[in-house]
Amino acid sequence: MTQSLPLAIVAGAGPGLGNTLLSRFKDRGYQVVGLNRSLPSKTDFDIRVVDLTDEQATNAVIASLIKEYGAPKVVIHNTAQLVIKPLAETTAGDFEACWRSMALSAFVLAKSLMQPMVDNGGGTFIVSGATASLRGSAKFSAFSSAKFALRGLTQSLAREFQPQGVHVVHSILDGIIDTDNSRSLHSMDPDKMMKPEDIAAVYFGLCEQPRSTWTHECDLRPFDGSF
Amino acid sequence: MTQSLPLAIVAGAGPGLGNTLLSRFKDRGYQVVGLNRSLPSKTDFDIRVVDLTDEQATNAVIASLIKEYGAPKVVIHNTAQLVIKPLAETTAGDFEACWRSMALSAFVLAKSLMQPMVDNGGGTFIVSGATASLRGSAKFSAFSSAKFALRGLTQSLAREFQPQGVHVVHSILDGIIDTDNSRSLHSMDPDKMMKPEDIAAVYFGLCEQPRSTWTHECDLRPFDGSF
Amino acid sequence: MTQSLPLAIVAGAGPGLGNTLLSRFKDRGYQVVGLNRSLPSKTDFDIRVVDLTDEQATNAVIASLIKEYGAPKVVIHNTAQLVIKPLAETTAGDFEACWRSMALSAFVLAKSLMQPMVDNGGGTFIVSGATASLRGSAKFSAFSSAKFALRGLTQSLAREFQPQGVHVVHSILDGIIDTDNSRSLHSMDPDKMMKPEDIAAVYFGLCEQPRSTWTHECDLRPFDGSF
Amino acid sequence: MTQSLPLAIVAGAGPGLGNTLLSRFKDRGYQVVGLNRSLPSKTDFDIRVVDLTDEQATNAVIASLIKEYGAPKVVIHNTAQLVIKPLAETTAGDFEACWRSMALSAFVLAKSLMQPMVDNGGGTFIVSGATASLRGSAKFSAFSSAKFALRGLTQSLAREFQPQGVHVVHSILDGIIDTDNSRSLHSMDPDKMMKPEDIAAVYFGLCEQPRSTWTHECDLRPFDGSF
Repeated sequence: MTQSLPLAIVAGAGPGLGNTLLSRFKDRGYQVVGLNRSLPSKTDFDIRVVDLTDEQATNAVIASLIKEYGAPKVVIHNTAQLVIKPLAETTAGDFEACWRSMALSAFVLAKSLMQPMVDNGGGTFIVSGATASLRGSAKFSAFSSAKFALRGLTQSLAREFQPQGVHVVHSILDGIIDTDNSRSLHSMDPDKMMKPEDIAAVYFGLCEQPRSTWTHECDLRPFDGSF
Repeated sequence: MTQSLPLAIVAGAGPGLGNTLLSRFKDRGYQVVGLNRSLPSKTDFDIRVVDLTDEQATNAVIASLIKEYGAPKVVIHNTAQLVIKPLAETTAGDFEACWRSMALSAFVLAKSLMQPMVDNGGGTFIVSGATASLRGSAKFSAFSSAKFALRGLTQSLAREFQPQGVHVVHSILDGIIDTDNSRSLHSMDPDKMMKPEDIAAVYFGLCEQPRSTWTHECDLRPFDGSF
Repeated sequence: MTQSLPLAIVAGAGPGLGNTLLSRFKDRGYQVVGLNRSLPSKTDFDIRVVDLTDEQATNAVIASLIKEYGAPKVVIHNTAQLVIKPLAETTAGDFEACWRSMALSAFVLAKSLMQPMVDNGGGTFIVSGATASLRGSAKFSAFSSAKFALRGLTQSLAREFQPQGVHVVHSILDGIIDTDNSRSLHSMDPDKMMKPEDIAAVYFGLCEQPRSTWTHECDLRPFDGSF
Repeated sequence: MTQSLPLAIVAGAGPGLGNTLLSRFKDRGYQVVGLNRSLPSKTDFDIRVVDLTDEQATNAVIASLIKEYGAPKVVIHNTAQLVIKPLAETTAGDFEACWRSMALSAFVLAKSLMQPMVDNGGGTFIVSGATASLRGSAKFSAFSSAKFALRGLTQSLAREFQPQGVHVVHSILDGIIDTDNSRSLHSMDPDKMMKPEDIAAVYFGLCEQPRSTWTHECDLRPFDGSF
């Protein structure tokens, strides 16, 4: 095990925000590792393929990373599965898939990492929320319910682990992230989309907060967003 | 199918609040049916045993009830599964069981009933939340996450179905309900516990609200509760 | 002092909701008295003209009412002053007038009445909030700020006085109330407005809640309102 | 008018956080000016004495600052007046003083500065909230009501001015700030207090946020704080 660089783990490491987060933390001197359900077609980073809802598989990957690099100083949970459908078209499978992808995965990840982080002197655990974390809307029954679940989990983790030295953040991304994918899906002016590198800068700043002033929840949105 | 009495369904129909709700709505002229995972050892009511996380089984029971009594005018979701453990002792199984019991069951129930209620001229769908619906706490990672999930779902249902005539309520029970079980578990003065019959009276009042003034969220707590 | 009937005081007793509240509580057996800044041009009720931001004047009126009827069982604070202007057009006078009308008046009223209500065995103190109580919006800087102030005050009163027997409620009226005035101001379908008599029925129900299940905050809105 | 350095204005510029904010922004290349009700006994900075609830006096001071330095790029509202008393001991004067000190002062300041900031290409307007901004408590009727008022105002300003280029932030300081004054008032371990320089670093970071990712609300608290 080498410990020359602090470890940052990004769960949900596809193109877009995940990739940018890896890039930012690498540039600032972190050893970075991505966790993803599948291997992105193109990446410059060390991505470990794992289903974060599979407790055994996740524990094995995390144990191996800790053995290589020590417990992480930074963990970012950034998985997403979007379902926008009226209730009649939303299946129990959709409802469960959203929850597994966004809430159960965060639970399994936290369970595998919180104690090692505490034992290693603390760190930062950031979770990405969305507009739907604060407000359920028509056609968002599956997505909102899962994002609410993630927020409730994150608050619980903050209240359990902050006194033990792990800073837990729920960051609400209240807008469309400017990715190739978003530009093809939305006709929105890209000037009104959130830049992945700007989000990554905020996340990096949250990891640098001294423990006398930890933010648990903050929102981020483009200047022009109605909210 | 007889339609002499409007139908009220109570999901989570064990002793305590479930049983009291059945009693209250029966007294006020409803045909009442309880849904429960298992048959309570003692009940005066028509209880159908069904696993509400099983979509097929739930649809079959609901279809049969609608055939007998017509679509319900009142549906109360009142299932609960309490887990209070530090993260290290909370298993992924606990985390999932809470969510299945409280969030997935509400989704499956809503999906089976919302359209028939709309087609039948509307009605009221009430969900029981808890303190943990608004605030995650240490040792409540599984329970809070599931209760948050339920709240996000309920808000989404309100915004989709209230314009179609179904009143959707998220009622936050912020206290200990006075049941035989609570009295044996807690040393609390019963005068500071919530009486099931008082909760039932509030739920009945919510079902009577005219559509010009529908409450979506309200809290209920004993007068002496610190909150 | 006669005590044959319990006293209900409605502050903000003009035509519309105030008048309807007086009517409802009178019908249900209360001695009702309205407090208003000016005498409505037409009313069937006992209206006392008082500036509720004037502590001395308010104390004098309340002392006289207590002498006549005993401490009230029900107090409803229902004053409103609407300002909708961009910041540039909102004067410090507007900002202060909203706050005096809605927040300071509630403080002065509570201060004059809470202790007598406690001494008299308790009662209910209801405050009318609005959409703007939960969310500040462009052009609502004066109105939202005052409604937020009222909510913060009401929460504080609840936490101080509920353990002493006075039920304190913050009721969020999230819609347009159907009055002659609203119909002339808005082109909205009256079917989508809140009926004063329906609001009054809810307020009456809140006053009847047994102390094992007190609601502190609830929202009310028409079935069709987007929210 | 020289424009070599961007202007940062700190309203509430006494010893403690105000002074530290001036120091931080000065170190990072800002021209800094403090506004205060009275001249601190000791300060290294340019402090203008002004009553921010006096619209004329405030406008005069701001006009003079804009003439000297141009419209500010950063404005921090950090005034506070703490009242902790049961309702019976809280006077209408206390209630009004809290509101004038914290809410009216922010309104007057915003009104004098928002348009010049818009015209000057934008900037950041930060307001300091507190635990009491989110939750009213017994003995905090005056303080909570004023802090709620400030939050409602700030949300309204954000929704009106962010689309015009002024970033508006409500920062919730959920803890005791470590100052000489706090150490003499509280027996709390200083390790559990918020360091003024850490808060200042967060505020500086908020001012640096690019407009694709603006935070409107964030909380800050010490790692060990129960919350």
